[in-house]
Parts: sequence; C-alpha cells; structure tokens
Amino acid sequence: MAEPATTSSFTGTCPVPFRDYPHVLMAHGGGGRLTQQLLRDIFLPAFANPQLDEAHDGAVLEVGAERLAFTTDSYVVRPLFFPGGDIGTLAVNGTVNDLLMCGARPRWLSAGFIIEEGLAMETLWRVAQSMRQSAAAAGVTLVTGDTKVVDKGKGDGLFVTTAGVGVLEWPLHLAPRAVQPGDAVLLSGDLGRHGMAILSVREGLTFEGPIESDCAPLVGPVRALLDAGLQVHCLRDLTRGGLASALNEIAVTAQVQIDIDESAIPVQEAVRGACEMFGLDPLYVANEGRFVAFVPATESGRALALLRGDPLGAGAQRIGQVVAGSAGLVTLRGRIGAQRILDLLSGEQLPRIC
Amino acid sequence: MAEPATTSSFTGTCPVPFRDYPHVLMAHGGGGRLTQQLLRDIFLPAFANPQLDEAHDGAVLEVGAERLAFTTDSYVVRPLFFPGGDIGTLAVNGTVNDLLMCGARPRWLSAGFIIEEGLAMETLWRVAQSMRQSAAAAGVTLVTGDTKVVDKGKGDGLFVTTAGVGVLEWPLHLAPRAVQPGDAVLLSGDLGRHGMAILSVREGLTFEGPIESDCAPLVGPVRALLDAGLQVHCLRDLTRGGLASALNEIAVTAQVQIDIDESAIPVQEAVRGACEMFGLDPLYVANEGRFVAFVPATESGRALALLRGDPLGAGAQRIGQVVAGSAGLVTLRGRIGAQRILDLLSGEQLPRIC
Repeated sequence: MAEPATTSSFTGTCPVPFRDYPHVLMAHGGGGRLTQQLLRDIFLPAFANPQLDEAHDGAVLEVGAERLAFTTDSYVVRPLFFPGGDIGTLAVNGTVNDLLMCGARPRWLSAGFIIEEGLAMETLWRVAQSMRQSAAAAGVTLVTGDTKVVDKGKGDGLFVTTAGVGVLEWPLHLAPRAVQPGDAVLLSGDLGRHGMAILSVREGLTFEGPIESDCAPLVGPVRALLDAGLQVHCLRDLTRGGLASALNEIAVTAQVQIDIDESAIPVQEAVRGACEMFGLDPLYVANEGRFVAFVPATESGRALALLRGDPLGAGAQRIGQVVAGSAGLVTLRGRIGAQRILDLLSGEQLPRIC
Repeated sequence: MAEPATTSSFTGTCPVPFRDYPHVLMAHGGGGRLTQQLLRDIFLPAFANPQLDEAHDGAVLEVGAERLAFTTDSYVVRPLFFPGGDIGTLAVNGTVNDLLMCGARPRWLSAGFIIEEGLAMETLWRVAQSMRQSAAAAGVTLVTGDTKVVDKGKGDGLFVTTAGVGVLEWPLHLAPRAVQPGDAVLLSGDLGRHGMAILSVREGLTFEGPIESDCAPLVGPVRALLDAGLQVHCLRDLTRGGLASALNEIAVTAQVQIDIDESAIPVQEAVRGACEMFGLDPLYVANEGRFVAFVPATESGRALALLRGDPLGAGAQRIGQVVAGSAGLVTLRGRIGAQRILDLLSGEQLPRIC
C-alpha cells in the first residue's frame, strides 16, 4: 500500500521577535490597539487576501451571479446570562448584525459549541432555546453545527462560535473604504448598555433598575435604509471597543478624518452613572444593538427619519461628519465645546463582554 | 427617546428532566452514543429544519441558481502540535473535508480563535502559518475571522472554530439518505493513524518511528470520483468515533443494513500495535484524512481505480456492501469469519483528538 501524503505543521522560523509582548494578554482580545496589533503581526500577514484586507465585519463572496456575505464571531461572555440576553442571543444577533453591516440579508447560521465538562444540561438547553428564539426573530436558520467537550478546568462553561451567510440583495457596496469627506455619521441609538449590563451583573450592582443589554438583531433599521434605496457608504456595529474604536478603524481604512459631537450622542442616565462609578467612557463601551451609518450629508435627514421609523432606531441621531482633514484622525467636540482627539484604547476596558 | 425592543434570554421551563445525565460529560463530545443523545435531546429539537435533519457533514444552501455547502467544526485538540499536523492543519483540513463530503468544491473559510491568556505569541504565529499552508494546499481562502482572549485557567491554550463555504459544481445530491441496498462501501485508505498519533504523543510513547496523523485535505480523491461523473450516493469522512460510528449513523439515517469485512480494512502495523497496547479498536479511532464512499456496486471497480489514482486514495479498498436486512444495523465479518454487530460506542474512547 502506497504511503499517502499528509499535511504537517509549519516548520519555518518565526521572523517576528515578539519582544514587547511574548505572550497573549487579555487586552489582545479587547478590540483596541493590541487587538489591531495581533491582526497586523499575525493574522493579516498569514492570510492576506482582498476580502480580509477590506477590514470589514465580513467578507463578500461572488458565486455565479450571486453576491454573498460570510462572517464569524466567537463568544466567550461571562456570565452566560445577563439582563437583556445571554450567550445564545449574543451569538445569533452578533453574527446577524455583522451580515447586515455588509449590506446582506442574513439567511443561514452555523454554531460550534465548546462545552466545559460539568456544565448543567439545563443551561445548555436554555442557551439553545435562546438561540432558536433569536434566530426566528432575525429570520435566519441555524443549519449546521458542532459540539466539543473539554475537561473541567480547561474551559469556562460554554463558548459559542457562530458563522453566518447572507445574500447581498441591494445594489450597494458597503465598506469602510467607501466612506468619504462629506458623509454624515448617524448613530442608531443610545450607547453603553451592553457593556454596563455585563459589568453591573458581575459586580453585583443594582441601580434603580437593572441596566439591560441592548442586544438585538438590527434587521429592521438596516432594511429601512437599504429598501429605501439610500446611497449608504458604510455600516458598522459598535461592539468590542464601542463607538470610539469603530470610528478609529474606519478613519484609518478610509484615510479620512471623522469629527463627532459628544452632545449629540444619547446615553441613558443609569448607564452614564454606572460609567462614572467605574471610571469608564461610554464611547468605548460595547453595544450589541447599535450601529453607525455613513451616508452623503444630503441624504442625512431622510436616513434619520427612516431609522427612527423602526423601534431599534428610534433614538437615532446625526452625531458628526467626515472631513478631508488628517487621515485616520477622530475628533470629539465635548459638551463644553472643546475639541479633542478620540483615540484607540491600548488596554482592555471590559474583558469578555461578548 | 423611545425605548428600543431588545432580545432577552429564553425564560420558559425546561421540559426534559435530564435525570440520567444532569451535567455534560467528556463522553458527550466523543462522537458516540452520548453525542447522539445531546443532539437528539437539545440541539435538534431547538433548531429542527430540513438541512439540520439531513444529518450530513454540512448544509446545502440554495441561492438563486447556485447550490452551496456550509459547515462548521470547533477544534480543541490536545496537544496543539502532534506528528503529522497541529490544530491549524486540523481546523483547515477538517472543514475542507466536510465540504467535500457534501460534494462541494471548498472555496472560503472563516476562523474564530479563542486564546487563553498567556499563550506564547510564537505558538499563535506558528498555527497561523500552518493554516495558511493548509489553506493553500486545499485551494481555499480564509476570508474572515475573529479573536477572543479568555483568562488564564479558563481555556486551554487555543481553540479554533472554522466554518466553510463551498460550491456544489457537480449534478449530484450526496446524502446519508441516498445510501441504498446494492451500494458498495469503499474506504479510501488505512485507519486509525490520527487518533493513535495523538495518543502516542500524549503518553510519550515512541514505537519504531512515530505514528503520523493522516490529517490531509481530501480534494484529490473526491474530485477524482466526482469529475468522472460517477453516481456517488454518499461520502463521509471518518473523524470522531471512526469508521464504526460513521457507518452506524448512516445505517440509521438511510434505514439500511451495512455489512463490512474486517480483513479488507487496512491498518498499519504500528497503529495495530498501539491499539492493542491501549485496548482500542482501530475501527473506532478517529482519522483526519480518510473517508468512505457509497457507490452502486456496478461502479465499484471504476471508483476504486479512480481513488487509487490519487496519493490520498492509494490504499483504497472495497470493504463491504449495503443490504436491505435490518434497518440501522452494521455487521462486521471478522478475520476468522464470524459475523458480529459493530455497535456505536457509549463512552469516550479518546477525548479531545480534534
């Protein structure tokens, strides 16, 4: 019998010294500067290709005459259940929203479950029910999956990785690169609820009422914009790293300056109070049901009206504009009028919020 | 500002008592009887839909005139590197092979990395290089990904979840349900190398030479069959649970009996020796570069010649046939001639081999 060829591990020598950071830190998963560094030094050089280089929430695939979007996210949120959702709602809505940000109608999901030995069966059952309910609400079907179990002490209850496929039904090419001077920046609603809901439950804090995560599928407000034929340039949901990180990434990719007005950004009183207590800035806190839309300024009024027509865009505001200025810069005009740079965070603000 | 609707966790009461198994055990991830139970009691009822109910290695999606395959797998192998491959080669080849088993040409992959705080950057870099190399060998592009970091002690170095999209370019509908009496069962090569490679390195055993995993992308032998226009009914790779579990699942889904001849099944001497030492049966040991093909018996000779024409099918053998007999039964005629039932294992044979 001939000996078949197999694939072996890569055996070359690592050209990057990794002197400054020989090991992975929690902050490498925070969505800030170190996450960007990990992508730049390890993943982008290994996998460089046009889709990955788009720095989008997902990839666009061309199959015959059809255009599809494809995306994935791993969920490691702690605790598994929190006010307003759980790891199952997050895993479905997060991937649904990434497809929507590509301008795709979300259609099919996969799910990979990594379960720690000893997890209560009822917990797993409850997460599966949440996923079923969220998938139905978003109009997607979970069509394929996988389950792995790891030894007690080698996991943390449950990790879920979803991937999604959607169909680009609108004649648009949404991408960070498409953002241009003259665009208005629209925000779909108030900021900071998801991160502060997680942090409050972790710290055992109850305010006047619990802060509920904004975790939701953004099908309604996104379809409202796209069905109306608006010339949207880019959509981006405001997850890890919040509004500030999303705007910084887009400003770098599109080589533009983005100017934001803090007084236009809605933040619930309870969220503002909790942020002050923990010394956090709501502009960096993760959301799971909020996005920004970049549209030509002339379309801004119509776009806002369309967003506000959906319950999930009811609090939409125009928060700023794109200017030629300094490529890669994001500025914030504060409540008292002074303008400052809104930078990418280096460290980890809130670990494991999604 | 109106209060947007959000998605909350499922709050109903669990109707399944889970009395016999209130917690998840390692064996629930083993690919045997308990894995089937987890699917039957938790995942299939929650997500029931025609694609998931096909019990296939992936789902078939229809988009316009195109047919696509979509699949996912999570990888938690321990150790991360082993003779013949690593978690990166496994994560790429495993998903590539699942797409091939659907009769699809593998095209695009996503990858979600769950990294334990403290993992050496060079380890992550090395896995990324292996993935790049494996993706190139299989002709697929990694187009989208995600990275999460969990606290030290809440993971195990690195878990990788890949999902894949392929295109069904051949006019075939491969599925376990399509298997029928009169089909020949062809095996693409020798069994047991992946599982025994992992076990040997874990136990620190060296035989005359190390047992190398058979981890490989099955593009060559699968394309050989499909390009020739052969009327293939079903393909199945022999991963977790090995040949015995794959045949049992197919016999149940297709409602047929499958009769196998042990003397036709190739097993390397070193693998057979290691299996004897550990009290394992190579028919239940995981492979990562082997599959069975079900073809009409009249096509069997031609199919074998096609398989043997590719290095990864060089050891192909006809190992049995499908008969009407008892629905769901798999029998094995042993080397000394006696026929016995080849059952699904209840427990965990080798934890975390993929």
